[in-house]
Amino acid sequence: MSELPADFVQQLHTLLGADLHRDSASLQAQAGDNSWREQRPALVACPRNLEQVQAVVRLCHAWRVPLVARGAGTGTTGAAVPTPGSVALVMTRMDRILAINPADRCAVVQPGVLNGSLQQALRPHGLFWAPDPSSFESCSIGGNLATNAGGPRAVRYGTSRDNVLGLKAVDGRGELIVCGGPWTKDATGYDLTHLLVGSEGTLAVIVEATLKLHPLPAARAGLRAFYRDAEAAAAAVARIMAQPVVPTVCEFLDARSLQLLRGNGATVPEAGAMLLLDVEGDEDSLPTLLGTVGSACEGEGLLEMDVATDGVARERLWAARRALSPALKTIAPGKINEDVVVPVSQMPALVAGVQALSARFALPIVTFGHAGNGNLHVNILYHPDDAGQNTRAQAALPEVFALVLALGGTLSGEHGIGLAKRDFMPAAFNPATLALMRAIKHAFDPAGILNPGKLLPPG
Amino acid sequence: MSELPADFVQQLHTLLGADLHRDSASLQAQAGDNSWREQRPALVACPRNLEQVQAVVRLCHAWRVPLVARGAGTGTTGAAVPTPGSVALVMTRMDRILAINPADRCAVVQPGVLNGSLQQALRPHGLFWAPDPSSFESCSIGGNLATNAGGPRAVRYGTSRDNVLGLKAVDGRGELIVCGGPWTKDATGYDLTHLLVGSEGTLAVIVEATLKLHPLPAARAGLRAFYRDAEAAAAAVARIMAQPVVPTVCEFLDARSLQLLRGNGATVPEAGAMLLLDVEGDEDSLPTLLGTVGSACEGEGLLEMDVATDGVARERLWAARRALSPALKTIAPGKINEDVVVPVSQMPALVAGVQALSARFALPIVTFGHAGNGNLHVNILYHPDDAGQNTRAQAALPEVFALVLALGGTLSGEHGIGLAKRDFMPAAFNPATLALMRAIKHAFDPAGILNPGKLLPPG
Repeated sequence: MSELPADFVQQLHTLLGADLHRDSASLQAQAGDNSWREQRPALVACPRNLEQVQAVVRLCHAWRVPLVARGAGTGTTGAAVPTPGSVALVMTRMDRILAINPADRCAVVQPGVLNGSLQQALRPHGLFWAPDPSSFESCSIGGNLATNAGGPRAVRYGTSRDNVLGLKAVDGRGELIVCGGPWTKDATGYDLTHLLVGSEGTLAVIVEATLKLHPLPAARAGLRAFYRDAEAAAAAVARIMAQPVVPTVCEFLDARSLQLLRGNGATVPEAGAMLLLDVEGDEDSLPTLLGTVGSACEGEGLLEMDVATDGVARERLWAARRALSPALKTIAPGKINEDVVVPVSQMPALVAGVQALSARFALPIVTFGHAGNGNLHVNILYHPDDAGQNTRAQAALPEVFALVLALGGTLSGEHGIGLAKRDFMPAAFNPATLALMRAIKHAFDPAGILNPGKLLPPG
Repeated sequence: MSELPADFVQQLHTLLGADLHRDSASLQAQAGDNSWREQRPALVACPRNLEQVQAVVRLCHAWRVPLVARGAGTGTTGAAVPTPGSVALVMTRMDRILAINPADRCAVVQPGVLNGSLQQALRPHGLFWAPDPSSFESCSIGGNLATNAGGPRAVRYGTSRDNVLGLKAVDGRGELIVCGGPWTKDATGYDLTHLLVGSEGTLAVIVEATLKLHPLPAARAGLRAFYRDAEAAAAAVARIMAQPVVPTVCEFLDARSLQLLRGNGATVPEAGAMLLLDVEGDEDSLPTLLGTVGSACEGEGLLEMDVATDGVARERLWAARRALSPALKTIAPGKINEDVVVPVSQMPALVAGVQALSARFALPIVTFGHAGNGNLHVNILYHPDDAGQNTRAQAALPEVFALVLALGGTLSGEHGIGLAKRDFMPAAFNPATLALMRAIKHAFDPAGILNPGKLLPPG
């Protein structure tokens, strides 16, 4: 780790006082994320307001010190793992909900607000923010926006990018960028708002967000359908998405997932694929909406279907899906979980291709996820202590990405790129498009101090 | 008009042959748009494929000749009006629908496809593309994307930006940029797709688009409600948008609009505001959905409400709205029609403020539009031949924008900036944000040849 200049540290200390940390526990607390990667920063800065963020960025810009903005550290790609010799800019202190405006269906929040805290604050207003990553109780809105986090509800409501109306952010020179606002239609200049979402802290540090809210549905029902094979399930997804009643959730489990669940004692029939859906509406309309979606589930290859109109029955339908992640650990302690995306029509080809890779690399690979978006989690399972398995797992990963790209898909639907997928970017984009991304990075951050080395491969 | 170098013209001719035009009729045909502005280009280039587009851009880049991409020329801001001495790049020949993929709910089109032609081609598949500008029969998809065109349906489905999944575009160096694709969830690198939408041909020339489609609703009903005043109507809009059944259309007419319609013989009651809604669903669910929206319309200040469940009755409800644009011409032949956006809660303040400006400048101003998005069309009516009215109309316009910005809104919801609103951009964005937009322009188009002078004010 390179040593930071004493004058720089002194000036940062003058700016932040007790909000600057360099003790071992503080550095360690900001070293990792959920990707198994770890790197301590040189310093930890915990700003309390916009002015402090701007001052820190300006100082880092002047001294050319790398600055890695972090939220709750729940990301899975290493995007928030500090670079050596960097200042970790921890945004968790800026955690105020500044406004909830039901009439304009929006909320204004600081980036450190937890997703779960926001949902709680919105509930009395009958509103919610759509992004629902599985870490929602502990992840921050700033991190959700930086990674374009999604979740199961994205099939109906979109991801973080689709649910932000405006941003305030500090660019790599310390300048405050203000874009968008509390409105839902905008043809005024370049769309910086959506560009910043998913940019993983490499373009600017988000300091405030105006979020698009949706009304909480009054009623919800669950629907579970088993199919002969992935083809039949994918055909059902196409039928479901081809009619106007969009389910809130449309999850897919492959044969390997179902086999695993049966092996763990779940009451799951012999089937090649499962779909799990939520349909939402008000008390009056829900039965007809559910009937429409249920009809779309019916067709060639459907083995059996269960509907749950009350909460307890719905929880029973969901039990198998919830049991899946723990069940993965019973096979092997190591897991490479990628969140690839393919056109919905290519899901059967993806599942088949992944199983061929599973056979070739002699490793179990379990595929499940957000079928309505063609966003599937491909889980390569292995024993990290077994050198052979470890090597094979690492070798299988590029083959998964190659398969996805060959099927006309892309690398990530909701986790982002970070360090984990950075080196696959040249396979996903042509050189001119990558060069343009680098030029945009340079426009926002001419000194290259903001989260260097993430998202874009070294030029 | 500056003369283009003979060698450049010769090289362009070698590239395009009979697809390069310099006769007076061809130059005149590409001189204007629907903004009353007019400027002939020096040359008209009509490429037939990607390779020709790239070759033209490369040549213009090498010779530093301005290049203005044009679709059908139906824009209202001058964005597609050629700059002096420029080459007009007319994309209407690239008008093929390359694919319609119902299973992936997307279509792949060239930019010259007309919005209306696409809708016609999609109908047999039970699908549609959401953007529905009033010019839909004659405007092109490329132009829709370049201006982020919207329309009444945007309240439910969003604007062009929300309905594009991927783009191929040629940047200012002639490089092909490929971003996004036939999927609905993407956390892979910077979001160039949405950045290009609404950039008015200043960043790149769109050569292909993958569009997000929606299933056609099976049934539709109309609902018309009259209110005491704009406040009561805005409160109803807030109630409508606070429940889960989003209407497909939610239009507002102010008191001045209703007065005008009554004066033209329409059977419209004495009321301070009107809302006009469409609710869509399937045959089974429509009655309950309509009931839910109807309940939300009820409340303080509602004077009367009509519901139309069949097509003929719905057309009757819509007749007044359709009569409005022609009626405007009975007041005065000149019209400055701006498409400002305010937070929904600020609509009454906007309507009141606009009426104060109407009194101050002694000109009728009629306000109506897309209430669900807070996107209102403010129509300043005047006689262009009356020097006093002309001067007052031009003087009133900056006051309208100042009012909108003071209410926390923005300049344009669906028309874009072009030349018409370019000089108001510094009022809408701080200097750092504008500087960043310029830096992004430079990243895409370092020689500044793509539609120079539009969208961004001279630095």
